[in-house]
Amino acid sequence: MASNKLRVAILGASGYTGAELVRLLSRHPQVAIVALTADRQAGKPAAEVFPQLVLQELPTLTKIDDVDWSGVDFVFCCLPHGLTQEVIAKLPRHLKIVDLSADFRLSDVDAYATWYGHAHHAPDLQKEAVYGLTEIKREAVRTARLVANPGCYPTAAQLPLIPLLEKKLIDAGDIIIDAKSGVTGAGRDAKQGSLYSEVTEGIHAYGVASHRHAPEIEQGLAEAAGKPILVNFTPHLMPMSRGILATIYVKMAPGVTADQLRAALTERYRKEYFVRVLPNGAAPATRHVRGSNFVLMSVHADRVPNRAIIMAVEDNLVKGASGQAVQNMNVMAGFPEETALEQLPLFP
Amino acid sequence: MASNKLRVAILGASGYTGAELVRLLSRHPQVAIVALTADRQAGKPAAEVFPQLVLQELPTLTKIDDVDWSGVDFVFCCLPHGLTQEVIAKLPRHLKIVDLSADFRLSDVDAYATWYGHAHHAPDLQKEAVYGLTEIKREAVRTARLVANPGCYPTAAQLPLIPLLEKKLIDAGDIIIDAKSGVTGAGRDAKQGSLYSEVTEGIHAYGVASHRHAPEIEQGLAEAAGKPILVNFTPHLMPMSRGILATIYVKMAPGVTADQLRAALTERYRKEYFVRVLPNGAAPATRHVRGSNFVLMSVHADRVPNRAIIMAVEDNLVKGASGQAVQNMNVMAGFPEETALEQLPLFP
Amino acid sequence: MASNKLRVAILGASGYTGAELVRLLSRHPQVAIVALTADRQAGKPAAEVFPQLVLQELPTLTKIDDVDWSGVDFVFCCLPHGLTQEVIAKLPRHLKIVDLSADFRLSDVDAYATWYGHAHHAPDLQKEAVYGLTEIKREAVRTARLVANPGCYPTAAQLPLIPLLEKKLIDAGDIIIDAKSGVTGAGRDAKQGSLYSEVTEGIHAYGVASHRHAPEIEQGLAEAAGKPILVNFTPHLMPMSRGILATIYVKMAPGVTADQLRAALTERYRKEYFVRVLPNGAAPATRHVRGSNFVLMSVHADRVPNRAIIMAVEDNLVKGASGQAVQNMNVMAGFPEETALEQLPLFP
Amino acid sequence: MASNKLRVAILGASGYTGAELVRLLSRHPQVAIVALTADRQAGKPAAEVFPQLVLQELPTLTKIDDVDWSGVDFVFCCLPHGLTQEVIAKLPRHLKIVDLSADFRLSDVDAYATWYGHAHHAPDLQKEAVYGLTEIKREAVRTARLVANPGCYPTAAQLPLIPLLEKKLIDAGDIIIDAKSGVTGAGRDAKQGSLYSEVTEGIHAYGVASHRHAPEIEQGLAEAAGKPILVNFTPHLMPMSRGILATIYVKMAPGVTADQLRAALTERYRKEYFVRVLPNGAAPATRHVRGSNFVLMSVHADRVPNRAIIMAVEDNLVKGASGQAVQNMNVMAGFPEETALEQLPLFP
Repeated sequence: MASNKLRVAILGASGYTGAELVRLLSRHPQVAIVALTADRQAGKPAAEVFPQLVLQELPTLTKIDDVDWSGVDFVFCCLPHGLTQEVIAKLPRHLKIVDLSADFRLSDVDAYATWYGHAHHAPDLQKEAVYGLTEIKREAVRTARLVANPGCYPTAAQLPLIPLLEKKLIDAGDIIIDAKSGVTGAGRDAKQGSLYSEVTEGIHAYGVASHRHAPEIEQGLAEAAGKPILVNFTPHLMPMSRGILATIYVKMAPGVTADQLRAALTERYRKEYFVRVLPNGAAPATRHVRGSNFVLMSVHADRVPNRAIIMAVEDNLVKGASGQAVQNMNVMAGFPEETALEQLPLFP
Repeated sequence: MASNKLRVAILGASGYTGAELVRLLSRHPQVAIVALTADRQAGKPAAEVFPQLVLQELPTLTKIDDVDWSGVDFVFCCLPHGLTQEVIAKLPRHLKIVDLSADFRLSDVDAYATWYGHAHHAPDLQKEAVYGLTEIKREAVRTARLVANPGCYPTAAQLPLIPLLEKKLIDAGDIIIDAKSGVTGAGRDAKQGSLYSEVTEGIHAYGVASHRHAPEIEQGLAEAAGKPILVNFTPHLMPMSRGILATIYVKMAPGVTADQLRAALTERYRKEYFVRVLPNGAAPATRHVRGSNFVLMSVHADRVPNRAIIMAVEDNLVKGASGQAVQNMNVMAGFPEETALEQLPLFP
Repeated sequence: MASNKLRVAILGASGYTGAELVRLLSRHPQVAIVALTADRQAGKPAAEVFPQLVLQELPTLTKIDDVDWSGVDFVFCCLPHGLTQEVIAKLPRHLKIVDLSADFRLSDVDAYATWYGHAHHAPDLQKEAVYGLTEIKREAVRTARLVANPGCYPTAAQLPLIPLLEKKLIDAGDIIIDAKSGVTGAGRDAKQGSLYSEVTEGIHAYGVASHRHAPEIEQGLAEAAGKPILVNFTPHLMPMSRGILATIYVKMAPGVTADQLRAALTERYRKEYFVRVLPNGAAPATRHVRGSNFVLMSVHADRVPNRAIIMAVEDNLVKGASGQAVQNMNVMAGFPEETALEQLPLFP
Repeated sequence: MASNKLRVAILGASGYTGAELVRLLSRHPQVAIVALTADRQAGKPAAEVFPQLVLQELPTLTKIDDVDWSGVDFVFCCLPHGLTQEVIAKLPRHLKIVDLSADFRLSDVDAYATWYGHAHHAPDLQKEAVYGLTEIKREAVRTARLVANPGCYPTAAQLPLIPLLEKKLIDAGDIIIDAKSGVTGAGRDAKQGSLYSEVTEGIHAYGVASHRHAPEIEQGLAEAAGKPILVNFTPHLMPMSRGILATIYVKMAPGVTADQLRAALTERYRKEYFVRVLPNGAAPATRHVRGSNFVLMSVHADRVPNRAIIMAVEDNLVKGASGQAVQNMNVMAGFPEETALEQLPLFP
C-alpha cells in the first residue's frame, strides 16, 4: 500500500458497523485498512468473517493487544460501551479516533453514570471528545482527536430539530419523537429478540420512555434551544435490516407555519451534500436511502392548528453509524467530505 | 346444509376481507355460506380463487345480480365505497347486513361528501346504520339491520381512547395517533405501491394529515368527549401482511397518572373477551394477535410530565375488518359473541 | 378441569414446537394441559413466556423434576436430542408419549450413533418406538406407547414418495430432494445464523449432502422400495417463519407418465383429511398451508423425457412437528383424528 | 457535460432495470446519461420517478419519439419483448445497443416464435446480435453493435455449467436446475402475484417445465456441449427483492470427482473479476452479492455416487440484468470492464 495513505484500524470489526466500515473504506482512495480486530475471531481470515467482501484483500483478524500501533494513524472503535472507555484510554496519543459506541457522547459524566449504570472510566478523555454530528459540529470535528460518533436515533432526530430550535420556530417543551428502526440497530450478537421469527411480519415498541438515546437527543436539543429539554422518545423495532424513520410531532411557535419550518430546513441544509429536504407533499421512505449516507426530511402541516409533523429517514448503519464515522474521518483528515460515501441508495 | 343455520352471502368475496370471512365462517357451527359474489371472477370455483381454502365446500363465485336473495338471511358486503351504497340500497329489506366498506360509517353525510368526493347515494340508509364498534356499541348493534363495520385504524384508535375521554382522564385537544399498518389494509388490487419490492425492508408515512380514517376516529372520540375533536393521525405502511399498532400520545388531565389510565382501561374491558390490557411495563406486539380477533393495549408513563403513551394492537383483517364483522353478526343473530373467533393468534 | 379429559404434559414447552402444541391443544375439547416444563424458565407464568396465548389459563412453567406424573396421562416431549433419551427413559410406564425430537426416529441405533455423534442412550426404548408418519403408519401408531414424531423435512419428502416407490412407479436410485424451509425449523435458541438480518431477503443452502434428515428420509423410502436407498437431499434456509416446500426430481419407471404418478397419489390419499393432491397445472405454495396441518402436493411432467417433478408443501411447525404430534395423539387416544386440527390456513 | 463522455440513452427507464442502470451509470466517470424515456411517465422529472436518486442531476423523462438521436452514442433498451424488436429496428445505425429484453437472445427465430407466441419482427437484426454473457462471449461483444443481454436465470445457470460441459466433466443429458428468484425479476408492473402479501413468508414454483428461460439456457449449454441439450429448469418465487440462487444437480462423467469440477471452474474463472469459486465446504448466499455484479459459485460432492451439486448466486438486477449490461457497454466502448461496477455487496 502506498505510504501516503491514511492507515486505519477497525476495532471490533466483526459486527455490522465494523463490516460496514470495511465496505465503505474499501472504496476510499486515500485510506488503507491495516488492522481489523475481533477478539473472539482473532486468527480468522477476513474472507471467512465477511463472505460478502470476498474480493477485497484485507488483513487477518487479530486481538486488540496484538496491533502494532506504530503502523496505524486512525482508529474506528466499534466496541461495547464501558469496554470502549478502557481501550481508548490505553491507545497511544498519536492516534486519531472515531468512536462508534455511546461512551463519549454524553458530555455530562454523571448523566452517563445514570443511564449506563456505572461511573465513567475516562472522564478526562470525555472532556476532550467532540460530538460528531457532522453537519452541526463540523468545525469542532475538524480539529478533534477523539470524536464521539452520534447514535443512530439521535442523528435522525437532531438533524431536523436543531435548526428549528435554534430559530425558535417550534415549542421546545412539546416534542414527540416516534421512531421506527431496523434490526441491525441491535447489533449482531445472538439474542432471541433479534431472531428472524421474532421480528418478521410485526412491530412493537421497546425501551418506552427509557431508551438511552433520549438523553443524547436532549443534550443536543438543549444546546440548540438554550435551555434544558425533555422529549418523548418512543423507539419501535420493525422487520427491516437497515433504516430509521423518525416521525416527529411538534407545536409551532405562534404565527409560524409548516411552510416556514420547511423553508428553514431547506435553507439550513442547502449546501449540505448528505441532507435533503423534500418538497411539500412528499414523505420520505427509508428504502430510498438504503446503503447510503443521505438523510431525507419532510415537513407536513397538521389538521390540528399550530402543529406540524416532521419526518427524517436515514440508513442506521451508514449515516446512523459507519457512514457518519467515515464522514467525520474525512473532515478530521482533510479529505473531501463525501469521499467513499457518494454511493447512491440501493432500491429496491 | 341444515335449514336452521343462518344463510350467509359474502359480496365482493375475492379480496382479503372476503377470504378472511370465509376462513372464519367456515368454522362457525350456526352459519352456512350460501353465496359468494365477485363480478370479475364469476363462474370460477371457490377453490381456484381461494387455494388456501381448498378443503372447504364452498359455492361457486357468482355475480351479485345472480344471487337468489330468498335463500339468504345475512349479507357481508366487501365492496368498494360508493358502489356499496348503490348495492345495499337495492337489497331486499329482510336481509341483515354488515358492511365492511366506509360507506355508512360517517353519520354526517356532508362529512362523507367532503372526504369521499361525492354526495352520499343513500342518505336514508345512513340514518338507519349503526356503527359497529362492538365493545362500545353492542346494544345498538343487537337490534340493527345494517351495521357499518369500523375501519381498521379507527378500531385500534378508538378502543383505548373512548373510555379515557368518557372519564375525562385525558385532554381531548392533544391527541396524536402514530399508526403502523400491514399491507393488506390496502386491499388485493394490483397497485405498484403494494408490490413486494416497494414495501419490503422499509417504512414510510402516507395520507399524512389527510387520511379518510381521521374523521371516523374523530366522530367516535367526539361522542365520547361530548365535544368536537381534531386528532393528529399519521398512518405508516410497513412490511407485514397483517397487523396495526397504534402508538398514541396523550396529555393527562391535571393530577391523573398513567397508572390511573391503565386502571380505567382494565376496568372498562374486564368482561370483554377480545380486549386485554397488559400489565405495567409490557408493550404489545402485532405478531401476538396475528390471525385472531384480540386487541392488546398498554399504558406507559412518559418522562415528560403529565404525558402518557398508549398502545393498541390488532390484526387489521380480523378485529380491524372481518373478525369484528363476524362478532357483529354474532351479536345481531343472538349467537355467543366469540363463536368462530376463539382461534388463538398464530405466532410466529 | 373435567376428570374425563386426557391430561397432557408438554416438556420443553418454551420453544416454537411447545408453543404450537399449546396453541393447538387449547382448542381440543378432550384435552387438558396440566403441566408445562421449561427448566430455564421454571417459575414463570405461561402468559409471560407465551404473550400470544394471554387469554388461555395455563399452568405455570416448572422443571421436569417437579412434575407429578400421577396426574398426567400423555406427554409431548420437545427436548433436544440426546437429553430426550435420558428423560424419556425415566418416565413412568403408564404415560403415552409423542416425542418430537430425532431421538427415536432411526430404528437402527448404529445409524443414530453415526449421524448424531454418540451412542444411543436408550436402545430398548428405541425398539418400542413407532415412527409416527400418521398417514403411512396409522395402525402401528394406534397401539403405540412411544411415538417418534417425524422430522419436518422427512414428512414433506416421504408423503409423496412412499406411495410411488411402493407401486414402483419411479426409479428408487434417482431421487433429488431440493427443500426450502422457514427459519423456525432451526428452533428458538439465539443463534447468529437465525438473526433477522442474517436471513431476510436472501437464501442459501446448508447441510449440503450431510443433513441429519437424510437418513430418516432414506429409512422410510427404503422400506417402501424394499431395498436400500440413497437420496440427494439439499435443504435451503429462506426468509419465512413457517413452511417447507420440497421440490422433488424423479425418473419414472419405463412407460410411466406424470399423470399416472398424480393419479396414484390422488388415489392413495383420497380418504385422508390432511393430504390433498392438486389438479394438473397447479403448484402448491407454502403460504396456502400456513398454520394448518394440511399437505398439498402436485406432480408435473418435465420437458426432459421420462422425468417428473413432484412438489409438496407443509407448515413445518404443524404437519412437520406439533400438528402431526397432535394427530398422533388423537390416533393413540381414540379421538377423531382431525380434532383441534381443523383450522384453515392463515392467508395472507 | 464533457464532450468526450459516452452519451447514453436508457429506453424504458422507469422500471427496476432502468433505475438500476441509472444507479450504476451515475458513478461511471466516462458516461453521461443524456436521455431517459418512459412513455407513460413522459414529462416527469427523474427525481419524481426515482426518489432514491434525488441527488443526481438527470434528464426529464421523455417519449422515445422525442429523443434526438444525433446527441446519443449508446442505448440501453429496457422495453417489453416484441415492442423491443420494433423500436430497435428503427434506431439509427450509428448507435450501439445493449438490449435487456429477451428479443434477441435466441439465435433461432423459429424457437423465438415458439416460445414467445409471435413471429420475430426483426430477423435480420437477430443475425447481427451477439449474446452478451460477458465472461463467455467477451471477444464477440467487443466488436458488436447490438448485444442481447442474457436473462437473469440463464446467467446464473450457464456460468457454472458451460466450462464443465466444454471439458466434458458432466453428463449433458442429466442436468437439473432448481432456481430461486427474488421478486424484481417479475418487473415493476402492478400484478396481483407480485403484491407484498402474496409473496412474503412463502415460496412456490412457477412456469414449471415451461419457463421461457429454458430454451435460452439450453442454447448456451448446447453450444458448449456440441450437441442439443434439454434441461430440467424449475424456477421458484421467494420473498426477496433481489437475488437468484441456482442449485444445480449434475451427474459427473465416469471417474470425475466434485473436486475436479471445482478445480475446473476455479481455473476457468481465475482471471475474472466478477466470478468467484468458493472453497470446498462453503455454500454461497444471495445476500452476499446483493447490489453487486459478482457471481459466487460452489461445488459439493453428493452422498449419491457420481453426482455433484453446483450452486451459483447473483443479484438478478445487477449481474442478471443492468450490471452485466454496463459490463458489456464497458467492453464495447473499450473502458475497463469493471468501471462503475466495483461496488461491494450491501450486507445485511
